[in-house]
Amino acid sequence: MERILIGDLHDHIDKEVSVAGYVDVRRDHGKLVFLDIRDRSGTVQAVALPNHAEAVEVAQALRPEYVVRVTANVNKRPEKMVNADQANGDIELELLSVTVLAEAAELPFEKEADLNLDTALDNRPFTLRSPRNQAIFKVQSEIVRAYREALLAEGFTEFQAPKIVGGDAEGGAEVFRLEYFKDRWAYLATSPQLYKQIMVGVYERVFTTGNVFRAEKHSTSRHLNEISMLDAEMGFVDSQYDVMDVFTKVLRHIVQHVGETCADELKLMGATLPNTPIEFPHVTLRDAQKLILEKTGRDNTEEPDLTPEDERWLCEYAAEELGSDFLYVTGFPVSKRPFYTMEDPDNPGYAKCFDLLFRGVEISSGNQRVHDYATLTEKMKDKGLEPENFSFYLQAFKYGMPPHGGWGLGLERLTEKMLGLDNVKEASLFPREINRIDTLLTQ
Amino acid sequence: MERILIGDLHDHIDKEVSVAGYVDVRRDHGKLVFLDIRDRSGTVQAVALPNHAEAVEVAQALRPEYVVRVTANVNKRPEKMVNADQANGDIELELLSVTVLAEAAELPFEKEADLNLDTALDNRPFTLRSPRNQAIFKVQSEIVRAYREALLAEGFTEFQAPKIVGGDAEGGAEVFRLEYFKDRWAYLATSPQLYKQIMVGVYERVFTTGNVFRAEKHSTSRHLNEISMLDAEMGFVDSQYDVMDVFTKVLRHIVQHVGETCADELKLMGATLPNTPIEFPHVTLRDAQKLILEKTGRDNTEEPDLTPEDERWLCEYAAEELGSDFLYVTGFPVSKRPFYTMEDPDNPGYAKCFDLLFRGVEISSGNQRVHDYATLTEKMKDKGLEPENFSFYLQAFKYGMPPHGGWGLGLERLTEKMLGLDNVKEASLFPREINRIDTLLTQ
Repeated sequence: MERILIGDLHDHIDKEVSVAGYVDVRRDHGKLVFLDIRDRSGTVQAVALPNHAEAVEVAQALRPEYVVRVTANVNKRPEKMVNADQANGDIELELLSVTVLAEAAELPFEKEADLNLDTALDNRPFTLRSPRNQAIFKVQSEIVRAYREALLAEGFTEFQAPKIVGGDAEGGAEVFRLEYFKDRWAYLATSPQLYKQIMVGVYERVFTTGNVFRAEKHSTSRHLNEISMLDAEMGFVDSQYDVMDVFTKVLRHIVQHVGETCADELKLMGATLPNTPIEFPHVTLRDAQKLILEKTGRDNTEEPDLTPEDERWLCEYAAEELGSDFLYVTGFPVSKRPFYTMEDPDNPGYAKCFDLLFRGVEISSGNQRVHDYATLTEKMKDKGLEPENFSFYLQAFKYGMPPHGGWGLGLERLTEKMLGLDNVKEASLFPREINRIDTLLTQ
Repeated sequence: MERILIGDLHDHIDKEVSVAGYVDVRRDHGKLVFLDIRDRSGTVQAVALPNHAEAVEVAQALRPEYVVRVTANVNKRPEKMVNADQANGDIELELLSVTVLAEAAELPFEKEADLNLDTALDNRPFTLRSPRNQAIFKVQSEIVRAYREALLAEGFTEFQAPKIVGGDAEGGAEVFRLEYFKDRWAYLATSPQLYKQIMVGVYERVFTTGNVFRAEKHSTSRHLNEISMLDAEMGFVDSQYDVMDVFTKVLRHIVQHVGETCADELKLMGATLPNTPIEFPHVTLRDAQKLILEKTGRDNTEEPDLTPEDERWLCEYAAEELGSDFLYVTGFPVSKRPFYTMEDPDNPGYAKCFDLLFRGVEISSGNQRVHDYATLTEKMKDKGLEPENFSFYLQAFKYGMPPHGGWGLGLERLTEKMLGLDNVKEASLFPREINRIDTLLTQ
């Protein structure tokens, strides 16, 4: 008999069906056994009645996470038994037969248990099945889907960026190295930056999603050593504001799409959708620092960056005073930005760049890039980099590159803040960190 | 003035517009200068006429790959000047002003030049701009898009798989290792296999696209050391045939989508869309070998795998006799398959598996997996693997796993064969191989 998904049972009331899924809960009432069965489409209550003795016998031996295939009649529940709050609260499966497809050991703890993070991660293949984790990563998958949809609608072309690279692109030290062939070292890309710039020369507007790797020796609630980045790059921009305009559209589409596709998940997480005005507010670093001084007395007006406290304060300010959960901060000192960042000719010493703040943290950086070959090689030298090591990348500029800019958006951090999680590791299915690759790394 | 895309110029006939793009070709006729200008949406001919002396002067200094912004009148061409074969063959831009946004050095060779592969790859940031390469990677991006669309429509959930792993999952030697923290080695994933199986326990049907890494010391037209894999895994299957049914739908959607979105690119490449009957033919390894013996006299009937020659012959046979460019081969010896492969109880010694052949080569492998915890640990031991090293993965099976199966599909090889390329490296934007990471690796 063909399997019917639990989410489609309403089309089969008063009929016999075959259903397959996990035993979510078993409630034993002597001669009656109640089961909640779940599949990818939902959950339904089933009951083994004394007139189906064989089904009762099998059902009595079941435990949570057993995998079963059942045949059953789909019955309407009597009026007084209807649970209007549940998706299948008005129906019940009357079990005719139960087949065990896989057994499950006794669970180490309840699936909904509130565990400390290390225990949760030690048991990730099991704990991912909790409604909470199912919700987190459903939302994450819809964020990625919406990200791509929005960029395709804006004329962007997707491309596949390599992860093995010949050198550390940005001259930072925090890069993993690996044994390549011929006794050579290669490196894991910290970003697809150079490749997406090259691709602007090919398709003008491009995006890529994939993992990047950062060998940062921190173990905090904000750090991961492997993250998923949502990157994009676009040609023919006049300034970073053109980039921000497209980015804002993309983020608004993500929020709208998550609202439309993940209502149940947001409810379960107690999360509220961000406010996303048609234009996100933006402020320069210096104006932001002046505002902070004026409103809080905290004087960071000479600092080259925002402190975490500043970021939180600005986000609260934007949410309360400007009606936006997103805030762009522009005009950081160019000396603190990578070599490919364009300096603002109207504001020497400062960059044509932005950070995007969301609910207290920076989730993205972007800027207009240097597109002139001679300037770019000079900027490399200024940062102590050897242009010869970048000869491949520089070809794109040698043969004509339009003014362009783009952003990188951290998927885990966006997911974390969208859902109000406490730790970015909760937003990574299999977080990599200094002490853990799946299991804890012991010495 | 707002930039108008070249593909939209027909909406602006007899109007003044601003256009930005690359100089594709310059043809200098003394006091007249003709340019082909291209942007992401198309190409158009532009002319600098003597009555716009300044435009002529700038235009005369242009070379291919210069980046320009122009203002121009959009004129209908006189009847006899219409080129009906070209997208904008009926219009012409009359240049009013030309601004150079970026210069380009003299090109090392014509963009359309037929280069040997090493030269093409040495100059990849430039050679990717050729119409041929633009076509290849446009098709590739549409393949990935269609792959995801098809799986989302079948109830699959996307997930992000880690690339840094703690050990080599399948016990093979051809894996890259990297320096992790605490003087530990970590490894680059050769496949998301174990993670997608874990995710079947969470969402039942899952897919992931991303890079995998294989430290194979070969440099052939079939090898890459970093490839993009299109993976999927699904629960509640009765056999590999259930997996193949979904996979066939996905491949048919890809072919249809590429046909709809890439007609120009296919034409330029001289590629024909594959034949995709509603059901792809399938044959067991042993029956295939018998057929080959019968038809060609080549006796490989005792071999555990198909030879490359067998694969080519079978593909020709399927195309000519069965009207399909795709062919599944099932029933390989289980001893040659990874530990997680399910043995066929009706055909001991053989696996519930398939290879998918397409235009002469295998582009995908799949199978039904072992889902029973005790059997799986036994299979590991049979292959000389330590179940303790897989304790994380095994949790998924300890707590109940449905019968399941899936596939991995190599994006580059599919792209290569879809377009009739000679070498898989042509289907990788930035191919990684034993001798090359962007530039050639010299000793």
